[in-house]
Amino acid sequence: MAQEKKLVEAITSMNEDFTQWYTDVIKKADLVDYSSVRGCMIIRPYGYAIWENIQKYLDARFKETGHENVYMPMFIPESLLLKEKEHVEGFAPEVAWVTHGGDEKLAERLCVRPTSETLFCDHYANIIQSYRDLPKLYNQWCSVVRWEKTTRPFLRTLEFLWQEGHTAHATADEAQQETITMLNVYADFCEKALAIPVIKGKKTEKEKFAGAKSTYTIESLMHDGKALQSGTSHNFGDGFARAFGIQYTGKENQLQYVHQTSWGVTTRLIGAIIMVHGDDSGLVLPPVIAPVQLVIVPVQMHKEGVLEKAGELKQRLSCVARVIMDDSDKMPGWKFSEHEMKGVPLRLEVGPKDIEKNQVVLVRRDTREKIFVSMDELETKVPQILEELQNALLERAREMRDKKTFKAETLDEFERTINETPGFIKAMWCGDRACEDAVKERTSATARCIPFEQETISDKCMCCGKPAKHMVYWGKAY
Amino acid sequence: MAQEKKLVEAITSMNEDFTQWYTDVIKKADLVDYSSVRGCMIIRPYGYAIWENIQKYLDARFKETGHENVYMPMFIPESLLLKEKEHVEGFAPEVAWVTHGGDEKLAERLCVRPTSETLFCDHYANIIQSYRDLPKLYNQWCSVVRWEKTTRPFLRTLEFLWQEGHTAHATADEAQQETITMLNVYADFCEKALAIPVIKGKKTEKEKFAGAKSTYTIESLMHDGKALQSGTSHNFGDGFARAFGIQYTGKENQLQYVHQTSWGVTTRLIGAIIMVHGDDSGLVLPPVIAPVQLVIVPVQMHKEGVLEKAGELKQRLSCVARVIMDDSDKMPGWKFSEHEMKGVPLRLEVGPKDIEKNQVVLVRRDTREKIFVSMDELETKVPQILEELQNALLERAREMRDKKTFKAETLDEFERTINETPGFIKAMWCGDRACEDAVKERTSATARCIPFEQETISDKCMCCGKPAKHMVYWGKAY
Ligand SMILES: [Zn+2]
Ligand SMILES: [Zn+2]
Repeated sequence: MAQEKKLVEAITSMNEDFTQWYTDVIKKADLVDYSSVRGCMIIRPYGYAIWENIQKYLDARFKETGHENVYMPMFIPESLLLKEKEHVEGFAPEVAWVTHGGDEKLAERLCVRPTSETLFCDHYANIIQSYRDLPKLYNQWCSVVRWEKTTRPFLRTLEFLWQEGHTAHATADEAQQETITMLNVYADFCEKALAIPVIKGKKTEKEKFAGAKSTYTIESLMHDGKALQSGTSHNFGDGFARAFGIQYTGKENQLQYVHQTSWGVTTRLIGAIIMVHGDDSGLVLPPVIAPVQLVIVPVQMHKEGVLEKAGELKQRLSCVARVIMDDSDKMPGWKFSEHEMKGVPLRLEVGPKDIEKNQVVLVRRDTREKIFVSMDELETKVPQILEELQNALLERAREMRDKKTFKAETLDEFERTINETPGFIKAMWCGDRACEDAVKERTSATARCIPFEQETISDKCMCCGKPAKHMVYWGKAY
Repeated sequence: MAQEKKLVEAITSMNEDFTQWYTDVIKKADLVDYSSVRGCMIIRPYGYAIWENIQKYLDARFKETGHENVYMPMFIPESLLLKEKEHVEGFAPEVAWVTHGGDEKLAERLCVRPTSETLFCDHYANIIQSYRDLPKLYNQWCSVVRWEKTTRPFLRTLEFLWQEGHTAHATADEAQQETITMLNVYADFCEKALAIPVIKGKKTEKEKFAGAKSTYTIESLMHDGKALQSGTSHNFGDGFARAFGIQYTGKENQLQYVHQTSWGVTTRLIGAIIMVHGDDSGLVLPPVIAPVQLVIVPVQMHKEGVLEKAGELKQRLSCVARVIMDDSDKMPGWKFSEHEMKGVPLRLEVGPKDIEKNQVVLVRRDTREKIFVSMDELETKVPQILEELQNALLERAREMRDKKTFKAETLDEFERTINETPGFIKAMWCGDRACEDAVKERTSATARCIPFEQETISDKCMCCGKPAKHMVYWGKAY
């Protein structure tokens, strides 16, 4: 037990220093390692396995909704990036430039894609001629690069992994529908797979994506009261189509511009999982995306029959869950805290006494609850407890978020609240950029979104007192 | 039928101009499109779906053999690339250099990874301390960049997709075993999934990977008699370990260097599929990796009951194969040649007369054979025919390769053979670099590999007449 303590004590407590806690967890749970390139992380097997589960789940949803995967080049010629004015202004300051190939200086610089709207548009201009070619529903899994000044693993890195959907439609209505459909896919995914409740809404003009007509977002709340933009879906209208000349011949033979969307989620979702569910013993992973759902720890494993029984249980349970057995030479207590650190949802302990009683002990990672289960019932009990745990995590996250969601009617109240009790603040807004700027300047909080579910906190803008147009979720964000 | 002809005539015949045939097929089968970046291709949905099937198959094999996926940064600092002398000499002339991030000039240039040995070594030096940390069996799916002068989609592009396995072992024996195990995984995959027979063997010193102790390869033969290196597996010995200081403490407490391997296959495998199985009607896809295994074409589909029946069959057959139904407004003949162009292994035709007889017509893509099958037997017949077709493709490819494999005892004979009947040439070699250079200079053929299965063609080197050490497969290569 001395060893167990040591491992647990090695991470900083959340309440003491949340930032340090986060850094400790990602290292000790073997999620990432730092690399020789500033701001770029190495995603280690355990971290990458979480990403693979995210990919698998989302990719299936994308395909069910009619999308196809493609692969675009990682380079964008400077002239192509320059084609859409707002877009280039948004991204040019933070791209990496390739200037030489081998020993030769390139005639035109290439940027490493920060996002691929320009490449998809260029391709769409080539392949879309008639209304019969529409819609085009493409998605790409890849990495992108943004030259950030300060970085933190998963949350903000120079290079990160993501998927970017890019679609082209015949009508504005269809594009709007797609934008919302994909936002809903993301929201569902966060709730059902990651056990993270989200606020769905629209970004303000100030916060929207460079080049978009409107940006929709799902916003989640971390344990420290900071907001995390967890996925975005953009309606481009025909802005890019006009810049890139993407036209099609309609049924009545008229030439028209397509309407486009794009949408993406990134490896920062792993950061969200850590910061929503984690605790002072480390990670807590929702079973749906946990690389390992159940770890079997044989107790007194050198006693006759223990290892055999544990192996037999592993075999049996592999049909209903992702199972490993830890038969390493470490002490059971050490193993317990190691797998707790890695957030394995369920632990199964089995020793000579359990075998005698034909039972095992299951221990839930979230509540530490010990559950005695007959060996004969394991195939039904394990999936059932995993499902309960998954639901409990969502419920707990929702309670946490609701407890950290506040209202404010005036900027004074707003400022006091955000400083004393960090979290979401619901407050009314007149719709003027000036007020949004004023809030940010005074509190460093931003408008996270104008939620679809509106409430009336008051009739007046909390900032200028003019009639309010929207209720907005505000917060300090990662 | 006029339309059908038009589509077929639109591609060049293989025998007339193989290069043009290849270009026609990849465009008409919707595999790729050209992009605005020189030498970079856009992999379109149909092409990418083939890659996804390749990934799925191989990734499962990698995991079965104990490997884990990770993700490394796409950038390598120049100083890191310089650490292993032979390696940097091999790659430095063909890398893309990032010199600016946003508006700032970087203090040190970063190259876009041409391969990631240096990054893995850097990481391994961090995480390997004890014999307990070994072996490390990592793999990565990503894209890499090599600044090639001339490019062709799938075969040689500036950027391509691949997987790169990188492993570290306690002993030289284990590393050698891993090298051969992974070569065998590749060879099995080519034969069983891609229906491409390969020659397994070792590369000569001249042809081996920059920095490797030895390189093993699988070589396949294309329809035009050119060889294609289809996968490689390298044993690095402890060369990189010494350059990067990757040491571990052994069981007896002594400090030792690890022994490493790397191995990879790329999207060029898609080029191999095209050039081994394709014909003058377009692609021919092996069922195991075909995105669509069966296309249902309703005939006289506006007659009562036809579409309903076709839809019902689609539903039924989706449980045993990857099925689509083409109920577009095009003429059946047009659809036939369109799906032939795309290499769909099996076509199912169903019309009013078939429905009357409770049967359908199945047409094999490879032989054009028409098979009448009772509707009641489809669930067993379709998988069975797909399996037969898969085996027939491998058989046909093996015959083609054997027919194009020749022997030569002298350089004169060698030169005549390779010019008159392009293919593999088996010939003896003394082992001297000078002879290998001479063969290349005179014929532009290279040593493809020293095959594991040796034969004695003669006792003497075909070039210098000195005693022969090895029988070598030679050929002109892509
Ligand atoms: Zn206001
Ligand atoms: Zn010789």
